[in-house]
Amino acid sequence: MARWEPDAQGRLQLAALELFQERGYASVTVAEIADRAGLTKRTFFNHFTDKREVLFAGAKDYEAGILKYLAEAGDDLSPLDAVLAALTRSSEDLVQYGDFARARQRLIESSIELRERDLVKTASLTAALADALNARGVPLGRARLTAQAALAVFDTAYVAWIGEGTGDLETLMGQVLEELREAVR
Amino acid sequence: MARWEPDAQGRLQLAALELFQERGYASVTVAEIADRAGLTKRTFFNHFTDKREVLFAGAKDYEAGILKYLAEAGDDLSPLDAVLAALTRSSEDLVQYGDFARARQRLIESSIELRERDLVKTASLTAALADALNARGVPLGRARLTAQAALAVFDTAYVAWIGEGTGDLETLMGQVLEELREAVR
Repeated sequence: MARWEPDAQGRLQLAALELFQERGYASVTVAEIADRAGLTKRTFFNHFTDKREVLFAGAKDYEAGILKYLAEAGDDLSPLDAVLAALTRSSEDLVQYGDFARARQRLIESSIELRERDLVKTASLTAALADALNARGVPLGRARLTAQAALAVFDTAYVAWIGEGTGDLETLMGQVLEELREAVR
Repeated sequence: MARWEPDAQGRLQLAALELFQERGYASVTVAEIADRAGLTKRTFFNHFTDKREVLFAGAKDYEAGILKYLAEAGDDLSPLDAVLAALTRSSEDLVQYGDFARARQRLIESSIELRERDLVKTASLTAALADALNARGVPLGRARLTAQAALAVFDTAYVAWIGEGTGDLETLMGQVLEELREAVR
């Protein structure tokens, strides 16, 4: 049995990220991740359901944060602007942990298995945002469309931000939204 | 060895759809699908890599059809309108096989595993459409955003069309596009 460890989850995530970067996601085992973190496989599975989840453990908290910010967004904002404001606020953490976020994103793009999980998390976030907009009085079809548009804007800006290595995510989101407006005109 | 069968693939797909509807996706085995179609497991795996693929076998042809229609779309159309025109043309088959499309869509919504595969196929189609727009001269970021917007419009209209059981998919797409324009205004 592993003894109780402060922040075992964080150590496992860091160890996994290091190993994936060194040798590629596919060839690293859970046992190796636990070993690098100085923990056991059993402790790993207390924190994560499988190897993929080690890169997505924050997704539920991230989603909860966005929903909280959306609930706090002013009634004067359009539904799209309210979602974008919530995404912008939640992205402050991403910017703060920029190097980690970039390394993680490159890993996700390197593996079909990880991209699959990423798509599922994004779909879950889209559905949660649509339900929250619906609760704000937006009809469900319109709410889903707005959530999809907002996440398309965010993802496009985020990929550009990851790729460039510089620039301000919020400014990029504004530019992408302008591009979307032109695209649908 | 199974003897050569005309349209073994179609028989396997139909048998799978029937069994999934009767007993739910999760509880049906590949052996049972093959048995219902009067074929062997080996024949099943000659046609499909796994159980999920039996509902997605047409995806590559569908994608190729959309790309062909996009290549044929007039230069006078905006990138978004060109993609929507291609999606509309390719949807004529969906409308023709409406009952099959509806049954399939309900199954996909019933299973996380199937939704996951559906998301992967949609992401692949989005990337292919973005590359095709890029080849038409649209910058890549803009091309990705346009492909995402077009598929959001199509998916929203498609889900409404599946749910309603009536109505014209093309008309619904026009209404949804108008909603998207208002949402981003």
